[in-house]
Amino acid sequence: MDLKEKIRDVPDFPKKGILFRDITTLLKDKKSFSFVVEELFKRYNDKDIDIIAGIESRGFIFGSALAYRINKGFVPIRKPGKLPSTTVSEEYSLEYGTDKIEMHVDAIKEGDRVLLIDDLLATGGTMAAACSLIEKAGGKVAECSFLIELAFLNGRDRLKGYDIYSMVTY
Amino acid sequence: MDLKEKIRDVPDFPKKGILFRDITTLLKDKKSFSFVVEELFKRYNDKDIDIIAGIESRGFIFGSALAYRINKGFVPIRKPGKLPSTTVSEEYSLEYGTDKIEMHVDAIKEGDRVLLIDDLLATGGTMAAACSLIEKAGGKVAECSFLIELAFLNGRDRLKGYDIYSMVTY
Repeated sequence: MDLKEKIRDVPDFPKKGILFRDITTLLKDKKSFSFVVEELFKRYNDKDIDIIAGIESRGFIFGSALAYRINKGFVPIRKPGKLPSTTVSEEYSLEYGTDKIEMHVDAIKEGDRVLLIDDLLATGGTMAAACSLIEKAGGKVAECSFLIELAFLNGRDRLKGYDIYSMVTY
Repeated sequence: MDLKEKIRDVPDFPKKGILFRDITTLLKDKKSFSFVVEELFKRYNDKDIDIIAGIESRGFIFGSALAYRINKGFVPIRKPGKLPSTTVSEEYSLEYGTDKIEMHVDAIKEGDRVLLIDDLLATGGTMAAACSLIEKAGGKVAECSFLIELAFLNGRDRLKGYDIYSMVTY
C-alpha cells in the first residue's frame, strides 16, 4: 500500500513555508490505518519488547493500537503538568526556546525494554528527550519507531546509538 | 476483572481537594489494557458504527485501539490550532472561562454514525461539545463511551438525548 497517497500535504502549516504531512486522512481510512498497525505488528511481534511508550499526542494513536495488537502495556509520555503522580522529566530545545516531556517514574520497571512510538521524526529533539526519560527511569530503548521521517531534517543525527525505524520517508 | 484495582487514586491533583483517577496504572498492565479493549469490542463490534472519534488526548488511547480492533477508521478531535486543514470547532464552558475543540470538517461523511470515545465523564462539557462537532460535520452520534464516569458530577445531564456508556463508575 502506498501510504503517501493517504497522507495529505497541507502547505504553510503551522507556519508559512512549511509543508505539513497530515496523517488524519490516513487514520480515517480503515484500510490504511489497519495496514499500518499490521506492519508494526509484523516488525515488533517477535522482538524483545516489554512495553510500548507513545509520545503525546499523535504517538498515542499508533502506540496504543500496537500495544493492544502485540499484547503489551502502554505508557503515555506527556507534556508537562498532565501526569498526576511522581514523574521524571526531560527538557529539550526547540527552534526558539525549550519544551519538556514527562513520564511517571514507575511507568516502567528496571531493565524493561521499551519501544518508543511517535508519528513523525523531524529534528529528533522530542524523541531524544524520550530516550533520556526511559533511561532515567531505568529502562532500555528497544527502538524508536515513527510513521513518517522527514529525512532532510537529519533527525537520525540526534538519535545516534539508538535503533530507528520509519515507515514512510520524505 | 475489577478495573478499580488497576486505577490509581491520586489526591489533590490537579488541585487541592480533587481525587484524580489515574489510568496510567491500568494502561501499563497488559492484561487490564487488553481487557478494556476487548470489553469495548464486545459492546461495539455488532453495532451500527461507521467510524470512531477520540477526544485529545487520553481518548486517543482507547479510541484508536478499538478502531483497529473493530476495523474502523479513527478521527482525532483536538485542542485548537493542532489540525492543519479546514476544521469545525465548538467552544464549551469550564469552571472558569471557556475551552474549544476542533475536528477536520472532512473527517466524517454526511450521515456517518460516529462512536465518540473519551477516558472520563466528569461534567460532560467536552463530550457535549464533541457531539455538536459531529453534528456540525453532518454525522450522527452513535454513542458516547467512557472508561470512567464520575457519577456525582452529573455529566449525563449535559448529554441528554445521547446514548452513554461507561465501564467504571465512581
